Amino acid sequence: MSEQIKRLKRELKFKGTILDFYQDTMEINGDHTVVWDFISHKGAAAVVPVTEEGKILMVRQYRNALERYTLEIPAGALDEVGEPGLECASRELEEETGYRSEKLEWLITLRTTVAFCNEKIEVFVARDLIPSKQNLDEDEFIDLKAYTIEELKEKIFSGEIEDAKTVSALLAYDTKYGKRA
Amino acid sequence: MSEQIKRLKRELKFKGTILDFYQDTMEINGDHTVVWDFISHKGAAAVVPVTEEGKILMVRQYRNALERYTLEIPAGALDEVGEPGLECASRELEEETGYRSEKLEWLITLRTTVAFCNEKIEVFVARDLIPSKQNLDEDEFIDLKAYTIEELKEKIFSGEIEDAKTVSALLAYDTKYGKRA
Repeated sequence: MSEQIKRLKRELKFKGTILDFYQDTMEINGDHTVVWDFISHKGAAAVVPVTEEGKILMVRQYRNALERYTLEIPAGALDEVGEPGLECASRELEEETGYRSEKLEWLITLRTTVAFCNEKIEVFVARDLIPSKQNLDEDEFIDLKAYTIEELKEKIFSGEIEDAKTVSALLAYDTKYGKRA
Repeated sequence: MSEQIKRLKRELKFKGTILDFYQDTMEINGDHTVVWDFISHKGAAAVVPVTEEGKILMVRQYRNALERYTLEIPAGALDEVGEPGLECASRELEEETGYRSEKLEWLITLRTTVAFCNEKIEVFVARDLIPSKQNLDEDEFIDLKAYTIEELKEKIFSGEIEDAKTVSALLAYDTKYGKRA
C-alpha cells in the first residue's frame, strides 16, 4: 500500500512558537503528485491523578484555540524532543495540581491527529499524591477540582468533556481499573 | 481567569492545503504579551461501524505524519465548514468501508488537540450495515478488517492503537454498549 504513496520532498513553510508547518509533495501511484500539510510538534505527556478517595484531579482553563473553558486532565509539552514522558508527566502534575507522586504508571500512548501532525502524548496514572506547591507558567491560569470517575463519564457522554486526550485517558483508566456493575 | 489572558490580534502566517497557520498575540495580566500558535481546521467526522456479529470494521492505512501504518476507525474531514457531522460520517463510512447505514447514532464529540487547534470530530455508531461500494479518494489506500471489541481493547493497552479519536471512540462504545463481566 505505501508503495503507492511516496514522499518526494518536505518543505518548511513557517516556524511557529511551538509548531513547525511543512508541506510534503507526495507522489501518488507513480503518475502524479499532491501536496499534504504536515505539522511537527515535540510531543507531550499527561497524567490521571487519583486521590486517596479514588477521585480524579481535573484542571479547568481557558483555551484560546476553542475560545472557551475546558475540563482536562493535567498535561503539558515536553521540554525538548526526547525528554522522557514520565519526567514531563511528573513535572506537569506538580506544576498544575500542586501534588507530587512517586507512583506514576503508564496507561496509554496517544497520537492526537494522525492526518497531519506527529504529536504524541504519553499518559500516566499517578497515585499516592503528596502535597507540594502549584507552580504555573506565567501564561497559565488553572482551576483545580476533584471528580468521581462516574461524574466524569457523564460529562463525556453529555458532550461537556470533548478534549480527546482527556476522553481517552479517563475511559482507559475506567476500563482498566474501574469497578464493573 | 480569562480576563488575565486577552487576544490582541490574530495573524495568518501560512495557508496550507487543509490547514491555516495563525499566530495570536496574547496579553497576559495586562502587562506583557506572548505569541501563541493557532491552527485552523474545518472539522471532521468518524464512525464506529458495527457488523451483525458485533464486530467493528477498522481501516488500516499509511499515515505520512507518523511514517507508519495505523489501525483506525473510518473518518474524514468535512467537505466544508458547517457540513453536518452525520452527513460526513455517512459518506466516509461508505467511501472507506463499502457499507452504508441508515442507523447512525451520535456517540461523542472530540477536540483533537486543544492547546493549538480548533479541530472537532463528531463520532457516530453505525449499525445495520448495507453492502455498497468502497469509493476511496485518489490518494487513499485502505485495508478493511473486522475485530471484536476485546481484540481492539488489547491493542489499545498494548500500545498498538494510539490514534486518539480511535481510542476515545472504541472505549466510549465499549463503556456505553459493551457487556460487563
